[in-house]
Amino acid sequence: MTIERVAIIGLGLLGGSIGLAVQKHLPGVATAGYDADPDVRARARERGLTAVVADRPVEAVEKADLVILCVPVGAMGEAARAIAPALGEDTIVSDVGSSKESTYSALSEALPHHHVIPAHPVAGTEESGPDAGFASLFHRRWCIVTPPEGADPAKVAALVTFWEDLGALVETMDAGHHDRVLAVTSHIPHLIAYTIVGTASDLEQVTRSEVIKFSAGGFRDFTRIAASDPTMWRDVFLNNREAVLEMLDRFLTDLALMREAIRAEDGETMFDWFTRTRAIRRGIVAIGQDDARPDFGRKDHD
Amino acid sequence: MTIERVAIIGLGLLGGSIGLAVQKHLPGVATAGYDADPDVRARARERGLTAVVADRPVEAVEKADLVILCVPVGAMGEAARAIAPALGEDTIVSDVGSSKESTYSALSEALPHHHVIPAHPVAGTEESGPDAGFASLFHRRWCIVTPPEGADPAKVAALVTFWEDLGALVETMDAGHHDRVLAVTSHIPHLIAYTIVGTASDLEQVTRSEVIKFSAGGFRDFTRIAASDPTMWRDVFLNNREAVLEMLDRFLTDLALMREAIRAEDGETMFDWFTRTRAIRRGIVAIGQDDARPDFGRKDHD
Ligand SMILES: NC(=O)c1ccc[n+]([C@@H]2O[C@H](COP(=O)([O-])OP(=O)(O)OC[C@H]3O[C@@H](n4cnc5c(N)ncnc54)[C@H](OP(=O)(O)O)[C@@H]3O)[C@@H](O)[C@H]2O)c1
Ligand SMILES: NC(=O)c1ccc[n+]([C@@H]2O[C@H](COP(=O)([O-])OP(=O)(O)OC[C@H]3O[C@@H](n4cnc5c(N)ncnc54)[C@H](OP(=O)(O)O)[C@@H]3O)[C@@H](O)[C@H]2O)c1
Repeated sequence: MTIERVAIIGLGLLGGSIGLAVQKHLPGVATAGYDADPDVRARARERGLTAVVADRPVEAVEKADLVILCVPVGAMGEAARAIAPALGEDTIVSDVGSSKESTYSALSEALPHHHVIPAHPVAGTEESGPDAGFASLFHRRWCIVTPPEGADPAKVAALVTFWEDLGALVETMDAGHHDRVLAVTSHIPHLIAYTIVGTASDLEQVTRSEVIKFSAGGFRDFTRIAASDPTMWRDVFLNNREAVLEMLDRFLTDLALMREAIRAEDGETMFDWFTRTRAIRRGIVAIGQDDARPDFGRKDHD
Repeated sequence: MTIERVAIIGLGLLGGSIGLAVQKHLPGVATAGYDADPDVRARARERGLTAVVADRPVEAVEKADLVILCVPVGAMGEAARAIAPALGEDTIVSDVGSSKESTYSALSEALPHHHVIPAHPVAGTEESGPDAGFASLFHRRWCIVTPPEGADPAKVAALVTFWEDLGALVETMDAGHHDRVLAVTSHIPHLIAYTIVGTASDLEQVTRSEVIKFSAGGFRDFTRIAASDPTMWRDVFLNNREAVLEMLDRFLTDLALMREAIRAEDGETMFDWFTRTRAIRRGIVAIGQDDARPDFGRKDHD
């Protein structure tokens, strides 16, 4: 099948970026969008995030070959119910939610007779809203597609091609495995960052302005991810609860080991641990998912 | 007093950057350096990190008005003893160590009759060694000077001016307070990052290559700081043990709260916490210690 019309529900960072990327990379494909918030729709029209911004969800999805839900994972079911009446029989319904088992449940429950094929582009920033999106967000970033059992192979292939056309690298896996992988590579890092930034802002002996001033020692990298959207992240933790708790407990066990090494002044354990972790960093730089310039190539030193 | 000759012991990231910065910003000031490692000395000569690279520590510090020890905090005492015989009566002995109470003890014990004024430039990258340094490392970054009680005010002023001449913003505080502030803004973030990167590389259900591939979801920001030098960081944790354990326990208490909120599906607690942490981020961007470009202005999307 070929995709000629794409509809995007939710015109924030992800939805807006998809809209801009389609218009850039697939100029022959028609785009329509909808967002629950009238202010977001107005801004989306100004920025031209999609060619058409509809005032009702059913209008946006009419005749679409592919609908992508770009709302917080807790809002997927509601967003799906709102478009159900206008969906074509053959339409692919996909999404960009950060957890995949719960998203699939919500979508397939709301749309039992449609072709639901969830996906998750592993690309983002700490910004959100209709001003945050940009066309190159997915370029050279991974997009994980999680086809449910029995999914139509032609439709899965069309969705994979769509993401590749936007510049992404695509991998397919099952939803449960996705949720474990992302718990480690994304959800736990966000939980830790949110926590430590909160801890730092509540100390009596160290002021908030000191924390801010001297953040260049490492802390500021945590504050960036702890500035991410609270609704999105609350929903992620509520919807990927088991995998997050499982990975969190692994982390807590290891942190207790490190704590004990410091308490016992066991330099060797620390040295060995710190040496091992460098290999992972090298792997990330080697495959181009980050770069080795000092300070990520921040230019503000000069 | 005016500083006309500077000697640098340890020609890695910090020592090399100071040498290059002095030659750039204070071209009238003579620079000499020494490093325990002959390969580092050879590379330091090639890069011209200091005008003279001596083969013995005593040669490097002869006639220096200011000596800066740029070695791991665990090596401060040894490095100080090695230069003791050649230090002038009036020489300022300073350092760049990441913990300050322990450094002051080590230096004042090794050099009881000299002017020890510790300092810590809060600027760094995850790189180390003689190739890592660059002249602008300190530009617009804070340098914390921790003058001991009874320090000669003229000498403290000279050291402050020196750092300002290299482009740094200077703040003075006592060593104990420094150690608490840095435990929060630097040492705990590094400990957490090292730990989670270790956890992630040991999972059975998620492969190392998956962790590396999908790191753009947040994890890669942790791997950067977890690629820092193991010797340096072992020494930091051994030498700022009490403040690190104190702050770590605060963090663990808060993390237990967040864990419980996830377990109990308490979305409100999460939402409130995640909303609060955004304010800290805005403070850091506002004072120019980071910038708000997506992905720190990484250019690899394009
Ligand atoms: N941000 C990231 O880094 C990232 C990365 C990968 C995947 N994701 C996933 O992408 C999805 C969207 O995230 P985002 O960062 O793009 O969030 P965002 O910028 O906040 O955009 C979401 C938009 O959806 C709207 N919305 C909420 N409920 C809706 C509904 N029922 N119908 C129509 N519109 C609705 C929101 O309006 P209101 O503001 O009025 O609620 C908002 O404008 C989430 O599922 C998230 O997990 C995010
Ligand atoms: N990296 C940062 O981000 C950062 C930021 C602020 C402050 N600091 C502090 O700066 C200091 C230096 O760190 P760095 O990152 O510059 O480390 P680095 O790049 O590893 O450089 C340290 C150099 O000192 C040498 N050395 C070790 N013991 C010595 C001795 N007794 N006499 C002479 N040279 C000796 C080392 O040689 P070998 O390799 O042979 O041991 C190495 O070449 C540490 O105290 C650290 O806490 C670091």
